[in-house]
Amino acid sequence: MSSNPHPRSFIDVTHYSENSRQNGKFSRPHSYLMQSPRIEIASDGPEFSRIVLGLWRIANWNMSPAQRLSLVEQALELGITTIDHADIYGDYDGERLFGEALALAPALREKMEIISKCGIRLLSANRPAHRLKHYDTGREHIIASVENTLTALHVEYLDLLLIHRPDPLMDADEVAEAFTALRRDGKVRHLGVSNFTPAQFELLASRVPLMTNQVELSVMHMDAMYDGTLDQCQRLRIAPMAWSALAGGRLFDDKDPRAERLRKALTSIAERHGVSMTTIAYAWILRHPSRPLVLTGSQRIEAMEEAVAATGLTLAREEWYSIWTASTGTSVL
Amino acid sequence: MSSNPHPRSFIDVTHYSENSRQNGKFSRPHSYLMQSPRIEIASDGPEFSRIVLGLWRIANWNMSPAQRLSLVEQALELGITTIDHADIYGDYDGERLFGEALALAPALREKMEIISKCGIRLLSANRPAHRLKHYDTGREHIIASVENTLTALHVEYLDLLLIHRPDPLMDADEVAEAFTALRRDGKVRHLGVSNFTPAQFELLASRVPLMTNQVELSVMHMDAMYDGTLDQCQRLRIAPMAWSALAGGRLFDDKDPRAERLRKALTSIAERHGVSMTTIAYAWILRHPSRPLVLTGSQRIEAMEEAVAATGLTLAREEWYSIWTASTGTSVL
Amino acid sequence: MSSNPHPRSFIDVTHYSENSRQNGKFSRPHSYLMQSPRIEIASDGPEFSRIVLGLWRIANWNMSPAQRLSLVEQALELGITTIDHADIYGDYDGERLFGEALALAPALREKMEIISKCGIRLLSANRPAHRLKHYDTGREHIIASVENTLTALHVEYLDLLLIHRPDPLMDADEVAEAFTALRRDGKVRHLGVSNFTPAQFELLASRVPLMTNQVELSVMHMDAMYDGTLDQCQRLRIAPMAWSALAGGRLFDDKDPRAERLRKALTSIAERHGVSMTTIAYAWILRHPSRPLVLTGSQRIEAMEEAVAATGLTLAREEWYSIWTASTGTSVL
Repeated sequence: MSSNPHPRSFIDVTHYSENSRQNGKFSRPHSYLMQSPRIEIASDGPEFSRIVLGLWRIANWNMSPAQRLSLVEQALELGITTIDHADIYGDYDGERLFGEALALAPALREKMEIISKCGIRLLSANRPAHRLKHYDTGREHIIASVENTLTALHVEYLDLLLIHRPDPLMDADEVAEAFTALRRDGKVRHLGVSNFTPAQFELLASRVPLMTNQVELSVMHMDAMYDGTLDQCQRLRIAPMAWSALAGGRLFDDKDPRAERLRKALTSIAERHGVSMTTIAYAWILRHPSRPLVLTGSQRIEAMEEAVAATGLTLAREEWYSIWTASTGTSVL
Repeated sequence: MSSNPHPRSFIDVTHYSENSRQNGKFSRPHSYLMQSPRIEIASDGPEFSRIVLGLWRIANWNMSPAQRLSLVEQALELGITTIDHADIYGDYDGERLFGEALALAPALREKMEIISKCGIRLLSANRPAHRLKHYDTGREHIIASVENTLTALHVEYLDLLLIHRPDPLMDADEVAEAFTALRRDGKVRHLGVSNFTPAQFELLASRVPLMTNQVELSVMHMDAMYDGTLDQCQRLRIAPMAWSALAGGRLFDDKDPRAERLRKALTSIAERHGVSMTTIAYAWILRHPSRPLVLTGSQRIEAMEEAVAATGLTLAREEWYSIWTASTGTSVL
Repeated sequence: MSSNPHPRSFIDVTHYSENSRQNGKFSRPHSYLMQSPRIEIASDGPEFSRIVLGLWRIANWNMSPAQRLSLVEQALELGITTIDHADIYGDYDGERLFGEALALAPALREKMEIISKCGIRLLSANRPAHRLKHYDTGREHIIASVENTLTALHVEYLDLLLIHRPDPLMDADEVAEAFTALRRDGKVRHLGVSNFTPAQFELLASRVPLMTNQVELSVMHMDAMYDGTLDQCQRLRIAPMAWSALAGGRLFDDKDPRAERLRKALTSIAERHGVSMTTIAYAWILRHPSRPLVLTGSQRIEAMEEAVAATGLTLAREEWYSIWTASTGTSVL
């Protein structure tokens, strides 16, 4: 895909998972890739790690700055060099928590790619002027939001800025202008979107190059495969990013027949490959020909390892469709 | 957007609305723009007034020709120079009623832009040959319909012809041929559509330039914002036109919780701006970045003024979203 | 549309239909076209017969090889020169049954155009390795499937290969590579798809020219007219192909009000034209401006004649819409 400046080592490790969710049932030895591979997310686009560390829950982890730094260092060791933020995560405080850790080891900045998002105005004690939750993709808000983000993160620039949600009031020319100004000032290198329909993507892409569409995608949420979103990504050779890749934990917790079917199908395949069912759930997404990047949202190193392990595993079509069949509850037509 | 050959005066007028719908509750003084601004509806397209006089109810008004002429003159004084017709309005008699008035002052023709539509065959005593309501976008019907329209309106040409409804039997080449013939003969200057999906628009636009898509759009009907219609307009820099901008009066009359919420939200914003809630309902549409033109369908001069007033008012994003929230009954995601 | 190397004779024949489904009610004399016309299905695409012999039921007909050959010869006499197969028809045995007949008169190959499809893996005693019904649009499967098909049909090449169903795992580059290799080897001349959404079509068409989209279309199934599928075909000047043109017989058998309304509407028009209601059901499809080809799936020569007769008959718009109205149960807007 692209020449890789980051040397990778592929090490077979015999590993006993201690994923407590799985009650020890799957504590069989398995091998995993030591590091996430890297991918050029678009033609002439930046190169990111296929597994991305998503920090939407960072404020819930009650970590000290040193613990946060350690988490990031462990992610980097796994080849997870791409970090996903948003201005609003942690009630507008998540980026600061990350920046506080990064300030302890500023040289790490150049070893990672940083994504952030803007475009939502949240009701928050940290934004007392907001009186209604709404979107804002105006020039002024985009630029102010990025500047806040850079300050909070203790960085000079973002590798990728995403418009967080489609805004009916989005003036595509105005977004393009805001991005052009930010790029000119060295504050943002690339632009993308999140949760955009194909028509919304096509509109903004007609004014400014877009590098990705970060969308919900998992074995429990396949809409993007059928509504044209991933078709568009593949056509334009834009790698999508998958959020909620484990369905926010519902994959493990839901009691309904669908979740039961999925756990059974994933477990069966996991046992065959000697990995956890979580790894198979990630591998199912990674198998898509649009080449999705996958976000992980856990602070546990084992959870990151389960995601990285998925990058070394290509599901057979029959395996992929047995999961599809478990999810839909029906055979293909 | 374009140089404006029509000098406009912006006059602050203290105005007491007498809108009987509002029971005097909103009879606060407000200022409004004296005239509707003008807008180039497409690149190299015609320039229209942002507020358009829609005459679909002209036959219900029981006006004399002189009264109809007076209505048009008052609209022109408000800068409402664009007039929207269709062959079928008033059971195929509306255009004649307008033409009868225009014949009293033929020089007015060059002070206005005239839109009409064709493509529907209505069951009507005025069309005894019709045995079934259906669409017809055949060459013969388009040309015959336009010729009827020109005769009825007492004009030599239309500024814009719209295909009224998407016809599954539409042969895009045939429509393009019909328009080319009409343009060559000086009978129609521009072509557009109404109520087309993005795919239908893309089909016809692949054969002939289209200047607009006239669609239903109001605080009670937001589909066009989410189904790709307005995204396509903005992408192609084509201004849409909004019909049923007040939801056919349901905005004022409906008793359901949604209409109640909307009236409350609109009223609150209206009071802040010193205008009527009707003006805010129009301003909500005009705020969209696709730059919609808005149709008004009333014979009352006060109603036209309420629409023109909206062109001088840009809703804050928070205001716009508070109306969106009232309409959907939910916060944004 | 294209020069026609096949001389056609248009012969008026007084014909008493003996379609037993119709209880003799419609046994009025009617004329039909002696031969199906031909059509270039895409710019620089192949020329096919407008009526296509679909062989998805061939294995149910319990015919001897000589009877199968006779069926094909009769189809050719009617100008039905295009034959539609799929690897999976007849539980993977249909193509062999056809090939067995063709082997009796191999010179017929050059008098016909042969379509086949691949991309579905069926659970079948004839494919014991399959453990789950699923799609497969991988290079290896496409090429192996075509090679099986050529062997079974006793032919050297296919005129058109279709991807049978949209596969979420379709890598468009890989499909394009597989087709390029097959074309280079003289095994397949053109590529198309079946049952693809517009977004899926646009994706694959971005990598390799597509000649058709074979979709469900009938008086009982109009989705393709409204979801953008036929708009896309017309825009790209690609003729679609209509499968299940008689709704799998439900048009004749269903007891619900919709089928009753349709039979009444079709019969009334059929009587006016002196043809069977089946002919009108085909003519309804053929009237669409995207120029659909229509598949017939019957082994009865009378059924083929009823389809060919439809090609000589252009429904009036009012007739077409009276059927539309019967199908939807509502007038147009």
